[in-house]
Amino acid sequence: MAKILSGKEVVAVLNEQLAQRAEALTQKGVTPCLAIVRVGERPDDIAYERGATNRCTKLGIAIKNFLLPEDASQQDLLDTIAEVNEDDSIHGCLLFRPLPKQFDDEAIRNALRPEKDADGITNGSLAGVFAGTDQGYPPCTPAACMEILDHFGIETTGKKAVVIGRSLVVGRPAALMLTSRNATVTVCHTKTIDMPSITREADILIVAAGRANIIGKEYFSPGQVVIDVGINIDENGVFCGDVNFAEAEPIVSAISPVPGGVGTVTTSVLAKHVIEAAEKRV
Amino acid sequence: MAKILSGKEVVAVLNEQLAQRAEALTQKGVTPCLAIVRVGERPDDIAYERGATNRCTKLGIAIKNFLLPEDASQQDLLDTIAEVNEDDSIHGCLLFRPLPKQFDDEAIRNALRPEKDADGITNGSLAGVFAGTDQGYPPCTPAACMEILDHFGIETTGKKAVVIGRSLVVGRPAALMLTSRNATVTVCHTKTIDMPSITREADILIVAAGRANIIGKEYFSPGQVVIDVGINIDENGVFCGDVNFAEAEPIVSAISPVPGGVGTVTTSVLAKHVIEAAEKRV
Repeated sequence: MAKILSGKEVVAVLNEQLAQRAEALTQKGVTPCLAIVRVGERPDDIAYERGATNRCTKLGIAIKNFLLPEDASQQDLLDTIAEVNEDDSIHGCLLFRPLPKQFDDEAIRNALRPEKDADGITNGSLAGVFAGTDQGYPPCTPAACMEILDHFGIETTGKKAVVIGRSLVVGRPAALMLTSRNATVTVCHTKTIDMPSITREADILIVAAGRANIIGKEYFSPGQVVIDVGINIDENGVFCGDVNFAEAEPIVSAISPVPGGVGTVTTSVLAKHVIEAAEKRV
Repeated sequence: MAKILSGKEVVAVLNEQLAQRAEALTQKGVTPCLAIVRVGERPDDIAYERGATNRCTKLGIAIKNFLLPEDASQQDLLDTIAEVNEDDSIHGCLLFRPLPKQFDDEAIRNALRPEKDADGITNGSLAGVFAGTDQGYPPCTPAACMEILDHFGIETTGKKAVVIGRSLVVGRPAALMLTSRNATVTVCHTKTIDMPSITREADILIVAAGRANIIGKEYFSPGQVVIDVGINIDENGVFCGDVNFAEAEPIVSAISPVPGGVGTVTTSVLAKHVIEAAEKRV
């Protein structure tokens, strides 16, 4: 019987702290504010926007929406980001990506000021994750994994951590963040040979494989802490992670569920970054 | 009897190619040019400057020296970097660091245009290493490790690589570069528990521990390729690496020596970056 690392528990404690910090800012005359920049009407983006807006509003964070049509030009979006940069009432910015094909993603990302980069997309934020400094902000998903570890008091120093996945938004930043937290980190990916023999050695296993239920019992060993970053819909239309939960749970000592795990925490992390950015301004 | 991964062999082949590329550029009316910016008179900097200048001059790369006094101000150095940025005849820049204490390192580093960042110090270059893209240039030392692997035809895909050290200039970028080259990479450091049990599992071991002869026989196993990044002077005043060469060499299948290994290759890598930057401009 593994301990269930419930995202709801993390969020309950985190949100209480964040609401207090937002209130303290408001009393100083600064209402923390998130700009949400969306190009087009992709359903995933709209769903995440709704979740982020609800979360932020409940915490006392204002939202400014910037909506551009699907066929907007590079210059239109650069103008929007310039507006976000120059508006002193805005502390953080969420820009939905991937962008439609007409955009130069690199130029767009780096037009945003790192100090407003609440979702960790600029080179300045990447450099901060790389170096383990507080420049910019890390991407919200790996930061949510760290929040879960912190909340449940899971020590990382001297531990063996294995990250499955080497993406720019999850695997690589999660590995660097764990290295900065003194874990001995191994990154596995599609070219890794005999991955289960590596993951079974982990004390902490972060799974961002990107395929439903793909990580089965041969990947686990007793005593492990497993954080499942995957969000998939299985053949029965049910939400599931990258980990085969039914196989993992009897073996490991702790595991984050899907739904109700990492995904639950990301919008609170986004809110945390906005509040931190506002606090730095005061 | 391990194969000796001689830096001289790598450099001989690399320099021949680079001289041809520099000549081709010169025939097109573009002489590749490196700016060397030095603050103060630190002997290590002066020694490296001499080596880099000799190497570049032999390859047909021009050098422009910018020398500032030890007590130069932040603005003096920013002005110098602006001059480097604006001078179209300069393709790459080497800036010696660490800088004296009066400087804001972050602001100085990022004042340089990433396309002239031949030594990989800007956030743009870090982001390129992070993402495995060709934005900016990687730091010369981990890039020299990759040159050695490439020269001797050492396959990285699917191999287990272990990096000892998590510094910003060697360990972390080397790990990310090996991940981009499809190795399964583990980063060890001072907080790693039972490091020898981890390094013995490596197919490729990159050692940047920063202490003379510290990595002894218990760290190695047969069949390994070892790249020693360390440059130290032992108690007898002799150059040595971080690896105890006498203990490692009988066990492993290939090893880079110190001196004559990675350190021999770094100035050629710097020259390569300058030539690449000039080629991108043509």
